[in-house]
Amino acid sequence: MTTFFPFSAIVGQDEMKLSMILTAIDPKIGGVLVFGDRGTGKSTAVRALAALLPEIQAIEGCPVNAEKSVDCPDWAGVTSKKTIKRPTPVIDLPLGVTEDRVVGALDIEKALTVGEKAFQPGLLARANRGYLYIDEVNLLEDHIVDLLLDVAQSGENVVEREGLSIRHAARFVLVGSGNPEEGELRPQLLDRFGLSVDVASPTDIEQRIEVIRRRDAFETNTAVFMKKWRRQDEKIRDKIERARGLLSGIENSDDVLRDCAKLCIALGSDGLRGELTLLRAARAVAAFDGQDHINRDHLRQVAPMALRHRLRRDPLDEAGSGARVSRAVEDVLG
Amino acid sequence: MTTFFPFSAIVGQDEMKLSMILTAIDPKIGGVLVFGDRGTGKSTAVRALAALLPEIQAIEGCPVNAEKSVDCPDWAGVTSKKTIKRPTPVIDLPLGVTEDRVVGALDIEKALTVGEKAFQPGLLARANRGYLYIDEVNLLEDHIVDLLLDVAQSGENVVEREGLSIRHAARFVLVGSGNPEEGELRPQLLDRFGLSVDVASPTDIEQRIEVIRRRDAFETNTAVFMKKWRRQDEKIRDKIERARGLLSGIENSDDVLRDCAKLCIALGSDGLRGELTLLRAARAVAAFDGQDHINRDHLRQVAPMALRHRLRRDPLDEAGSGARVSRAVEDVLG
Amino acid sequence: MTTFFPFSAIVGQDEMKLSMILTAIDPKIGGVLVFGDRGTGKSTAVRALAALLPEIQAIEGCPVNAEKSVDCPDWAGVTSKKTIKRPTPVIDLPLGVTEDRVVGALDIEKALTVGEKAFQPGLLARANRGYLYIDEVNLLEDHIVDLLLDVAQSGENVVEREGLSIRHAARFVLVGSGNPEEGELRPQLLDRFGLSVDVASPTDIEQRIEVIRRRDAFETNTAVFMKKWRRQDEKIRDKIERARGLLSGIENSDDVLRDCAKLCIALGSDGLRGELTLLRAARAVAAFDGQDHINRDHLRQVAPMALRHRLRRDPLDEAGSGARVSRAVEDVLG
Amino acid sequence: MTTFFPFSAIVGQDEMKLSMILTAIDPKIGGVLVFGDRGTGKSTAVRALAALLPEIQAIEGCPVNAEKSVDCPDWAGVTSKKTIKRPTPVIDLPLGVTEDRVVGALDIEKALTVGEKAFQPGLLARANRGYLYIDEVNLLEDHIVDLLLDVAQSGENVVEREGLSIRHAARFVLVGSGNPEEGELRPQLLDRFGLSVDVASPTDIEQRIEVIRRRDAFETNTAVFMKKWRRQDEKIRDKIERARGLLSGIENSDDVLRDCAKLCIALGSDGLRGELTLLRAARAVAAFDGQDHINRDHLRQVAPMALRHRLRRDPLDEAGSGARVSRAVEDVLG
Amino acid sequence: MTTFFPFSAIVGQDEMKLSMILTAIDPKIGGVLVFGDRGTGKSTAVRALAALLPEIQAIEGCPVNAEKSVDCPDWAGVTSKKTIKRPTPVIDLPLGVTEDRVVGALDIEKALTVGEKAFQPGLLARANRGYLYIDEVNLLEDHIVDLLLDVAQSGENVVEREGLSIRHAARFVLVGSGNPEEGELRPQLLDRFGLSVDVASPTDIEQRIEVIRRRDAFETNTAVFMKKWRRQDEKIRDKIERARGLLSGIENSDDVLRDCAKLCIALGSDGLRGELTLLRAARAVAAFDGQDHINRDHLRQVAPMALRHRLRRDPLDEAGSGARVSRAVEDVLG
Amino acid sequence: MTTFFPFSAIVGQDEMKLSMILTAIDPKIGGVLVFGDRGTGKSTAVRALAALLPEIQAIEGCPVNAEKSVDCPDWAGVTSKKTIKRPTPVIDLPLGVTEDRVVGALDIEKALTVGEKAFQPGLLARANRGYLYIDEVNLLEDHIVDLLLDVAQSGENVVEREGLSIRHAARFVLVGSGNPEEGELRPQLLDRFGLSVDVASPTDIEQRIEVIRRRDAFETNTAVFMKKWRRQDEKIRDKIERARGLLSGIENSDDVLRDCAKLCIALGSDGLRGELTLLRAARAVAAFDGQDHINRDHLRQVAPMALRHRLRRDPLDEAGSGARVSRAVEDVLG
Repeated sequence: MTTFFPFSAIVGQDEMKLSMILTAIDPKIGGVLVFGDRGTGKSTAVRALAALLPEIQAIEGCPVNAEKSVDCPDWAGVTSKKTIKRPTPVIDLPLGVTEDRVVGALDIEKALTVGEKAFQPGLLARANRGYLYIDEVNLLEDHIVDLLLDVAQSGENVVEREGLSIRHAARFVLVGSGNPEEGELRPQLLDRFGLSVDVASPTDIEQRIEVIRRRDAFETNTAVFMKKWRRQDEKIRDKIERARGLLSGIENSDDVLRDCAKLCIALGSDGLRGELTLLRAARAVAAFDGQDHINRDHLRQVAPMALRHRLRRDPLDEAGSGARVSRAVEDVLG
Repeated sequence: MTTFFPFSAIVGQDEMKLSMILTAIDPKIGGVLVFGDRGTGKSTAVRALAALLPEIQAIEGCPVNAEKSVDCPDWAGVTSKKTIKRPTPVIDLPLGVTEDRVVGALDIEKALTVGEKAFQPGLLARANRGYLYIDEVNLLEDHIVDLLLDVAQSGENVVEREGLSIRHAARFVLVGSGNPEEGELRPQLLDRFGLSVDVASPTDIEQRIEVIRRRDAFETNTAVFMKKWRRQDEKIRDKIERARGLLSGIENSDDVLRDCAKLCIALGSDGLRGELTLLRAARAVAAFDGQDHINRDHLRQVAPMALRHRLRRDPLDEAGSGARVSRAVEDVLG
Repeated sequence: MTTFFPFSAIVGQDEMKLSMILTAIDPKIGGVLVFGDRGTGKSTAVRALAALLPEIQAIEGCPVNAEKSVDCPDWAGVTSKKTIKRPTPVIDLPLGVTEDRVVGALDIEKALTVGEKAFQPGLLARANRGYLYIDEVNLLEDHIVDLLLDVAQSGENVVEREGLSIRHAARFVLVGSGNPEEGELRPQLLDRFGLSVDVASPTDIEQRIEVIRRRDAFETNTAVFMKKWRRQDEKIRDKIERARGLLSGIENSDDVLRDCAKLCIALGSDGLRGELTLLRAARAVAAFDGQDHINRDHLRQVAPMALRHRLRRDPLDEAGSGARVSRAVEDVLG
Repeated sequence: MTTFFPFSAIVGQDEMKLSMILTAIDPKIGGVLVFGDRGTGKSTAVRALAALLPEIQAIEGCPVNAEKSVDCPDWAGVTSKKTIKRPTPVIDLPLGVTEDRVVGALDIEKALTVGEKAFQPGLLARANRGYLYIDEVNLLEDHIVDLLLDVAQSGENVVEREGLSIRHAARFVLVGSGNPEEGELRPQLLDRFGLSVDVASPTDIEQRIEVIRRRDAFETNTAVFMKKWRRQDEKIRDKIERARGLLSGIENSDDVLRDCAKLCIALGSDGLRGELTLLRAARAVAAFDGQDHINRDHLRQVAPMALRHRLRRDPLDEAGSGARVSRAVEDVLG
Repeated sequence: MTTFFPFSAIVGQDEMKLSMILTAIDPKIGGVLVFGDRGTGKSTAVRALAALLPEIQAIEGCPVNAEKSVDCPDWAGVTSKKTIKRPTPVIDLPLGVTEDRVVGALDIEKALTVGEKAFQPGLLARANRGYLYIDEVNLLEDHIVDLLLDVAQSGENVVEREGLSIRHAARFVLVGSGNPEEGELRPQLLDRFGLSVDVASPTDIEQRIEVIRRRDAFETNTAVFMKKWRRQDEKIRDKIERARGLLSGIENSDDVLRDCAKLCIALGSDGLRGELTLLRAARAVAAFDGQDHINRDHLRQVAPMALRHRLRRDPLDEAGSGARVSRAVEDVLG
Repeated sequence: MTTFFPFSAIVGQDEMKLSMILTAIDPKIGGVLVFGDRGTGKSTAVRALAALLPEIQAIEGCPVNAEKSVDCPDWAGVTSKKTIKRPTPVIDLPLGVTEDRVVGALDIEKALTVGEKAFQPGLLARANRGYLYIDEVNLLEDHIVDLLLDVAQSGENVVEREGLSIRHAARFVLVGSGNPEEGELRPQLLDRFGLSVDVASPTDIEQRIEVIRRRDAFETNTAVFMKKWRRQDEKIRDKIERARGLLSGIENSDDVLRDCAKLCIALGSDGLRGELTLLRAARAVAAFDGQDHINRDHLRQVAPMALRHRLRRDPLDEAGSGARVSRAVEDVLG
């Protein structure tokens, strides 16, 4: 129903755009956090993502968009085996959403009329095989963010409430936008996002004018504007689909693994999620480049977005986290 | 039922009156925040707005005031295709309103009697194509203000609760009044209002006497007073309707765009909402002037109301935000 | 059922008694706040007010005491057109009253038995055309006080809850008593009361003895005591009724308006509610005096009660607010 | 069912015992607050009161113990006109009592079975014409204490909840025990109790032994012990009944009124509740003495219990409130 | 179902074991508080108590274990007059128990099916004539502890909720365990427990080894271990039953009463609960010794457990409360 | 449904792996707490445990997995006596689980349809004879952790709520993971876990590379990877089953008991839970070694995990708790 601003019409913001493309190539990279002050186009960008994503094949009527008939859960009562094409789901978590709508709940209507304890799936079911977007993730209550990250990581939604005991596939990429001025996320939550990017308003006046011109054109003559940019979006989509094909053919060389480990040790990032994400993101960027192996340039390209949010705070080092990653990249990769 | 004070009988307060006229010309400018101490006539002014607005064409019985039959949502069950004239809706958010009445909710009566899960639309549905007014917006809970701004911006009300999954058009201008002494709005919320104006009691004694004389006459002999000012209100309404016709014909020259960008950079306002609002407000004021292009006077007229609430606090600059905008206007526009 | 102490038997407390008489003459003056330490007879005085008020004409059975058949709301289902005499309603807000009883709510009984969504009016409906009394208004939650002041000012009760969307007339004078030692009202709330008066225990020993003698006589031999004072109360009631007739014939001279404005400017009271209240109260006291115009003595008499609670705190001026008003009256009116 | 310790078997504690006798002679004196550390027999004493009180005449089956048929409320549906003798009710507010049981509420059973909105009276109805006892009144929530004091003072229970609008007589003496170490009552609440007394463990060893001997005898051989003390209790009860007869014949001389006023002014007690209570308590003690007028000894006897809890705190006067009252009594009464 | 560790197999902890034996001889002594760090066997000991208690005679099917048919409450609807032997009830307050399960509540099932307002008794009913055990009493909310102590002291459960007005016998000994490191009980609550004891891990290595050996044997070969200790437990039980018979024959000499009073005065314990408890505990220990009078050794034995928790804190005296009691015992009793 | 990482493919982390093996040999050792920073593989390891556990024999359809027909509770209504093989239950406490799902609750469906008060068992029933896993136990509310530990220790779930009074076997090992940076557990809770282990990211670069290589292989080619490690897991499982057989044959020598006691005294650990756990863990490790007696090496191996979390904080000793245990082991055991 709503028309979103085209992804390719976004002026600048290259790192953010790349991060989204990479999760579209390999969803196992994990979620993306987009940080930025108010008005920097975070929401616009994330919503533009929907225009970019290739379609999926799914069983007709299946509430979790299952690809094969056997994967559609029993409680859905779907008998059709026909698959149809659907846009990749991009589910928007509206403000004020209640937990029962997120995870699903007892279907009150069926309970009252048929006297049957049926499950009504929630937004996590709808988001399966797609994206789940939270605007201002720092305003959500911790326990909901926790729940979302937990499901995003396990790929499964486990519901134990109101006498129901249900589990279903819920594999999706979590995309959150946040405003660092409005309160921070707990480090524990930060670490569970795969990538993070910063966005800021352009400081170059010509670029700012271009941004206003495009936004105004989009809002004033939507149809004309959309038509103008459709081709550009399609090109990116094709590149993503080709990259997906290449992905499984890219091997991990020991050198790459060692580079990943060295970088993380140099940065003192806790745990091993940093290394794994770095490896996967580098592999995805290599595939996007149409290559069959990862090189150091790929690592350089993705290191900031994979590691920036995993650094311990260093009170003696006044450099921002982005700068600290760049310095480590230079030290380790030369 | 209630009779409001006529818009044109308000003494002074020109900026506030202009801000409301501009949103009536182009609702995409966004909401208006009216700041002022107690007793400065904020509520009176906002309620006077209702007298000013042109009528709309809407499908008979449609709960969201849809203009065309296809736009009336399915859940409304409206079959008529006849359109009727209605006053532009000005919906008042009463104190103590519950969230379910704002966004709409399960129709309990139908659920209990017919056993059917029907949607009962809320105030957001009623406000579609009109105004939603919140007195003392700073006393509302943040999550409701957030929700209202979110809907106002997207133009769509998404309901995910009580087993319902509904969306309907909710395009309206949000008007809020606030008392800076009673607690501030978060900057994140401030930025999402299009315009902001300050109102204050007149300090000129003759003007004060005129205010009291008119208020007392209005309260003592309402009918006589209303009749006296009706003509004046109608003149403004006609000017608004003419301006709406002119609006789409006004082009953005690069010079205007550059002026907008320069002003915002000079003021250090975050994000790009400032520039966009400035552009739209200038275009609306040009149309109200009956002109076919934007000139620097138009920018000068609307810059304070479009930018005043988007400045970062500058601890070294003791000037008020209004004065800082004026200074920047002088520097940039000459 | 309960018998209240007679209004005219109250010893001293002239300002408080006058303030109540004035709101009985012109309810548009707005509510009265009675401040005083514990045990100073605040509650006694306010409850005595009921004995003083003239009767009203109202449609038989109408829940909002409508004067004419057309003004009785549809949801009441009243078909009678007969009017009867009733005492002016003085509704007492009991401690622990729930919000649904204040504004009205869904009639659960009808909902359960007839399956119908009917409205059961609350205390605001009953108070229409009368008084609503809150003992210790500072102990009420802000949101309820807010709601009461909002309705008192607009004269209309708007109910948006539990699927109901009702509005009905609720024009009443709000009378609140408060103890300044037990927490203050927000300035925003203060300003919305029309008048305010201070009461204190008498310090003159003969007066104190007279107070005790009367209270003890009232409590020991209620019937005898009431009979003794009835005539006195009736005299005041007659004077009030005559004053109501005179009220509309009293014109505002420009001199009076100028005096009002000057006084408020001299006192630096925010907003224009002060001037309007001053004007109305002066007109009511002129009518009570049986005169056809307002003179400076009238202004002098009512200025303290109309303005005392609207002053900004002045840290350099140690005089009480009453003294500051008197000084300004002397300066401005001579 | 439970047997309480006999009033006359209490060792010492004369002031507390007198305070209770006085309220039994004239309930209009108001409630009694009993202060004391843990284990000083506060609860024992208050519960012993039940043994002391004369019987009342009440309509059979009336939930509010009405004396005459016309006083039994309609909602009770009592048709009998026969009166029976009943013990004076002493109602105990159990811990964890819910507000609906205090004030009364909708009778859920009738609502569900007969579909009728009937009122089920609460403890306030049962306490009419008797006593309501709260152990550790300082542990009750303020709003309940407020409610109880409000009803105790007005003599009427007004219920506005759950669609009910009921009022019934609720004249009772409120007796509260409190431990000053466990948190204080708000001055506003303190002032609304008529009398207050302090109790403490005896410091004399023989007296302590006597206390233990009696308590142990009571608990070990209850029946024997009760029999032994019955006669003593009956004597006090007879004296109370005679005093009630004398009460209305005792006039207030101006000298007595003047003494009351002087005492209160000397002590700087706010408001006039002090004087009124002092007068009533002195009259009751005169009646208990079998006399037809109040003399200064009567005032001396009751001044501490009537005034002790109404003093303003004086930071320069380190004497306890009891000592301050005694000093003032000496100064004023000689 | 669950098997508890045998009472007599507890290594050391003599004071705690004695305190429990005494309350089994005379339940009027009041509850026992067991203090100790984590892991000192508090819970084990208290649960072992169940093995020790003699059986009771009770009416078959009576929910409050009434001894005689007339004592079984009407609401129970028990018609049988047959008595059966039952183990003394030891009721365990499980974590997360809700207040309605403690005091009893409306029987929802009967209300819904038969439409009848029946009472479903709670744990207080089940505990009648037995023990009620609370693990970590300091973690319970104050209002529940208050309620339990109130019922324990009055011996009666008064229920005023949900339209029910029920009272039934609830005479039980309250046993609570607490960890002084996890927050303290209010002094007001402390004082209402009859006895208190401290437990600590043994510091003697051989004793520690014995504790581990027995616990391990109990957990590894439960049946064998239980059989081994049964005889020992039976011996204590027989001694308790004999002591109960002797109890009423033991007189209070004046010397004993004087010793009790002197001890309490020496310790400055507030109130008289200390003396009464001391007297009762000494009488019970005399009976356990098979004697017909109380001597000073009996007082010495029970003084610490009866008085330790009733001392005021003395900031100048650094000795623990146990040591302070011992010193006073030495001073007073020689 | 979900496939977990194989236990034997975990790189390093020997202490954590051993702790889990020991509780599989003797569940009476009690729960395990796994501490570690984010990303150290805590969750992975715990979930891997499921792959390791031998199957159990259980009555078909029994909700508490009873081994024998008589142990299956009445409320389950199971009539079958047939036993089947089942995997050892490893129940995962999902985020946002409600208390009723943990302990069980009234079966609403049966209550509404059949009008019967039936019990619907919760996760505690399902976990009987197995494991209950809580990720980030420090984020759970204290009262739930308390409840879980209470049930884990008593082996019985007691439900007193909603008119139900149910108890059933609930013997399980509680496994919790915690992040010390995110808030600490109360010492009272810590002590009730049997063992605790610390996990950390490897600091050796080759080991880190191996971890990433295995994780990436697992996620990229799950089936191949699982097949490769199955044999290793089976070997451990066989060793566990053999150890269980040996367990009851291992006697406690007095020397071992004395060593346990000495160690705990040396470390100043409160209570005796430390000694008991140490003894049981040493016995389990001896059985895992295939030996018939406990030697000092066994004690050395398990002392850190049995005692580390039971030390009092010593402000003068800056060594970590692990180091303090090692030092004590060296001192006592040589």
